[in-house]
Amino acid sequence: MRIDEAIRGLIGPDSFITDEDAMAPYLVDWRNRYHGRAQGVARPATPSEVAAVVRICAQNAVPVVPQGGNTGMCGGATPDPTGRAIVIGLDRMNRIRDVDPLNNAITVDAGCVLADIQARAGEVGRLFPMGLGSEGSCQIGGNLSTNAGGTAVLRYGTMRDLVLGLEVALPDGRIWNGLRALRKDSTGYDLKQLFIGAEGTLGIITGAVLKLFPTPMVSRSAMVALDGVEAALRLLAALRATCGDRLNAFEIMSAGQLALVLRHIPDVRNPVATEAPYYLMIEASDAAGADDLGGMLETVLGQAHADGTILDAVVASSEAQAALIWRLRHSVSEANMREGLGVSHDTSVPISRLPEFVADCTASLGERFPQANTVFVGHVGDGNIHVVVIFQRELFPDADAFERVATEVTTIVHDASAARGGSISAEHGIGQMHAARLARYKDPLELDLMRAIKRTLDPGGIMNPGKILVP
Amino acid sequence: MRIDEAIRGLIGPDSFITDEDAMAPYLVDWRNRYHGRAQGVARPATPSEVAAVVRICAQNAVPVVPQGGNTGMCGGATPDPTGRAIVIGLDRMNRIRDVDPLNNAITVDAGCVLADIQARAGEVGRLFPMGLGSEGSCQIGGNLSTNAGGTAVLRYGTMRDLVLGLEVALPDGRIWNGLRALRKDSTGYDLKQLFIGAEGTLGIITGAVLKLFPTPMVSRSAMVALDGVEAALRLLAALRATCGDRLNAFEIMSAGQLALVLRHIPDVRNPVATEAPYYLMIEASDAAGADDLGGMLETVLGQAHADGTILDAVVASSEAQAALIWRLRHSVSEANMREGLGVSHDTSVPISRLPEFVADCTASLGERFPQANTVFVGHVGDGNIHVVVIFQRELFPDADAFERVATEVTTIVHDASAARGGSISAEHGIGQMHAARLARYKDPLELDLMRAIKRTLDPGGIMNPGKILVP
Repeated sequence: MRIDEAIRGLIGPDSFITDEDAMAPYLVDWRNRYHGRAQGVARPATPSEVAAVVRICAQNAVPVVPQGGNTGMCGGATPDPTGRAIVIGLDRMNRIRDVDPLNNAITVDAGCVLADIQARAGEVGRLFPMGLGSEGSCQIGGNLSTNAGGTAVLRYGTMRDLVLGLEVALPDGRIWNGLRALRKDSTGYDLKQLFIGAEGTLGIITGAVLKLFPTPMVSRSAMVALDGVEAALRLLAALRATCGDRLNAFEIMSAGQLALVLRHIPDVRNPVATEAPYYLMIEASDAAGADDLGGMLETVLGQAHADGTILDAVVASSEAQAALIWRLRHSVSEANMREGLGVSHDTSVPISRLPEFVADCTASLGERFPQANTVFVGHVGDGNIHVVVIFQRELFPDADAFERVATEVTTIVHDASAARGGSISAEHGIGQMHAARLARYKDPLELDLMRAIKRTLDPGGIMNPGKILVP
Repeated sequence: MRIDEAIRGLIGPDSFITDEDAMAPYLVDWRNRYHGRAQGVARPATPSEVAAVVRICAQNAVPVVPQGGNTGMCGGATPDPTGRAIVIGLDRMNRIRDVDPLNNAITVDAGCVLADIQARAGEVGRLFPMGLGSEGSCQIGGNLSTNAGGTAVLRYGTMRDLVLGLEVALPDGRIWNGLRALRKDSTGYDLKQLFIGAEGTLGIITGAVLKLFPTPMVSRSAMVALDGVEAALRLLAALRATCGDRLNAFEIMSAGQLALVLRHIPDVRNPVATEAPYYLMIEASDAAGADDLGGMLETVLGQAHADGTILDAVVASSEAQAALIWRLRHSVSEANMREGLGVSHDTSVPISRLPEFVADCTASLGERFPQANTVFVGHVGDGNIHVVVIFQRELFPDADAFERVATEVTTIVHDASAARGGSISAEHGIGQMHAARLARYKDPLELDLMRAIKRTLDPGGIMNPGKILVP
C-alpha cells in the first residue's frame, strides 16, 4: 500500500492533504523566510493517530515534520525542499483534557492555542503565566518544543519551568505517557526534559500537564529613564530586595528603539519627560492581600533617583497609562519591520555581563556597519537582550546581498555573546536557521552527546531532520 | 600497571584508601541499612582528577560508586557486596568557585556541603533556598543527583529548579563543561537535566552553577489545628489567593505523629490549645518592603476559622514561638526512631488526590496491621506526605521478620500512590532500595527509554551499577 493511502486509511481521507494550494500554508514559515515541500500534510485528531502516522513514516523511512501554530522564529516547523517529508499539523488536537485548580494543573492537547489555555485557567481563577506576542495563534506543543520565554520569565520561568508532565509520540510510533501531575518525583531520569526544547527532533509532543498559579489581583507598571544597562542592573537588584517575587517584568529599550516605535506606531507617546539613552518597562503584581504596590514602586524608584541610579520615572497612575507603556514594548517588531531590513538576535548572557556585551556590540557593529541603526530591546532581567541591526531597504539590490550582510552581523553578535558564556538562542530555538552555526558555538563534546541521544531515540533519523543538528 | 597503582599515580598515594578501617565509613549508609565492599576509595581533589579516575575504571571495567555526604535515604551511594567497585568520595572538592550576586548565581564544586553554600550566599545578601535536615553534612552533588526536595519546595522548587549549569565527569572519562550561568538558553537538548536525579548512574557531577534569590527580610509562622487533609487543601488555596508567593512552607502532621514528638522530645509542647486530628505548620516570608505578614496570616486564618475550615490556629508572636513550631516539625525522625521500628515512605500524588490517598492508606494499613501505629507527616503543599508505619520493637524476633513486614507495608503504600498517578519516591530517589520495585510502578516503555539512555552514556555499565536500574 502506498503511504498516502495508508495514512488516509488511518486518519480519514479528509485529514491527509496533498493538494498543492491546501498544503501551501504548511510549507512556509510566517515570516516567509523558509520554504519547503512535502508529500502531504497529515492532520491527526488524537495522540494515537499521531503515533500511527509516525509509525508508518518510520516503516517507510519518510521524514516527519511536526508543526504547531507555525509562529516559530527559526524555521523549525518548515520541511526541507526535497519534498520527501510528511508534515504533521497538530491543529486538530486542541482539547483541554482536564483542569485541576486544587492541584494547580491543567492537562491539554499539544495543539491547544496558548490563549485558549490562558483563558481556561482564568475561568477557574488561575493564571497560566506564559505570554507571547503570538499567543493568539501559537500552540503549546510548539512553545514546549522551543522552550519558549516571553515577558514573565523573570517571575515564572521559561516553558520548561511550567511543565509537570508530557505525552509524546516516539519516533517508532509508540506513545510515552508521562502525563504526571506531580510537584515532586525522583524516580529516575526525568525523560520529559529531553523533549522540551528538542523542536520535534526526538518525538512529537501530543499532550502536556502544565502548572497553574494563583491569579495576581493587583498589578502596577512603571517606565524609567536611565543612562545605561549597568544602572538598570542596580535598579533591578534594589527592586528585588524590596519587592521580592512581586516583580513580573523588567524590560529594556534603547533610545533608538523607542524612537522607532514613536515614529512608526500611531497614537503612542513617551510617558517619561526626560530624554535618556535607555528606558525600562517594569511590572509588579501581587495577590489579593497586597499592600500598596504603587507606593512600593515609587519608594524604590524615588531612592534610585536620589542616588543617581536613574534619571526619571513614571509609575502608571491608571490602567490606560500602564497599557501605553506595554504597547510601546509590544510594538517593537512592527515598528522595526516598517523602518527597514532588520537583523534580530536572541542572545542571552549572565546578567552581570550584560553591560559589556551591549558595549561590545555597540562598538563592533558601529565600526563595521556605520550605515546601520543598532538598537537594543528585551528582557534585561533574564540576561536576554535582543540586538536588532536595521538597514534601509535601498542599501541592498537583492535578497542575497542582504543575507550576506545579515550573516556577518549575526556572527559579530553571536561571538560577543559566546565570549561571555552566553547563548546564541535564549528563547527562539535553533530550527534550521542556526543549525549549521551550532558547531561554532557548542562544545564538540556537547554536540556528540546530543547526537548520541538523537541516534538512541530516533535511529532512523526521521524526526524533523535538519533541525538543531545538521545531519 | 595495577589499577590501585595507576590511581595513586594520578591523585597521590594518600588520596586512594584501601585500608579496611579507613574505608569503613564509605561502605555503609548512615542509617546502617546497606553494607558494601570496595577495592578502594579514591578522593580526587579536582574535576580532572575525578575524570582521570573514572577513565582508568572504564578501561578496566571496574564499577564506580560516587559518594557525597553519605546522607542518602535509599543506599544510592553504597557499593554492592562484591568488592569490585571503587568508591569516589567527593569530599575534597569543596571549593566555592564564584559568587555573582548581580546574576544571582553561585558556582560550586560538587563536594561543597549544603550549609556552606547557604552561608556563602548569605554573605552577599542572597538566599540559596534548598534546606534539608542533613544540610550540615550533605553535599550539593548528592542533592543534585537525587533531585532533593525539603521544606521550601512550595516556593522555590526542587533541586532541579535551582540549577543553571552543571559540570560532569562522563563514564568514558571526558569532562562535559555545562557550567552556564544563563536564565534562558534554547540551543538544543538540555543535557544537564539528564544528570539531575540520575544518582550517579550516567556520570559524576563535579560542579554546578546554582540560582540565588533575594533574602526574605520578614518571616512569620503559624500552627493550625484542623479535621483532615481536605480542609488543609482548602486553607492552602485561601492562603495562596491572599499571600501569593509569600508562602514558603505548608506542612502537615497527624495527631498521632504530633503525640510521638511530644512523648519523645524534651522541652516541646503543642502551642495550639485545641485537640484535633491534624495540624499544619505554615511559614510565610517576604522582602524588605513587606506589609504586615502576621496580620495577613491572621486574616486568612480568622476567615478559615469562621467558615469552619479550621478548628484553631496560632500565629507565632515571637521568634521563640516560631522556633518551637518548627522544632516540632524537625523532630519527627528522632521521635519516630525512639518510638519503635518505623517503615517510612516518600510518596507524592497530585495535591487534589491527597485526601483519598491518606484515607486509603489509613484504612488498608489499619486493617492489615492493627498492631501498628500509622502516622502522617510531610509536605502537603507539594502532594508529598510521608506515611510512617511504626511497630513496637518487641513484635519482631529478628531483622528478617521485620523486613518481610516492611516490604508488605511498603507495597500497600506504594500501590495506593500509584493508583492515583503518584510517585513512589518524591524526593529521596531510588538508589538500591527501590530499584527492583521500579518495574512494578514504571511504564515498561519508560524503563526501556531509561535503559536506552543508560546504554548510550554508559555502554560499559560502570557508573553506580544496581542503582535506579536493575542490571
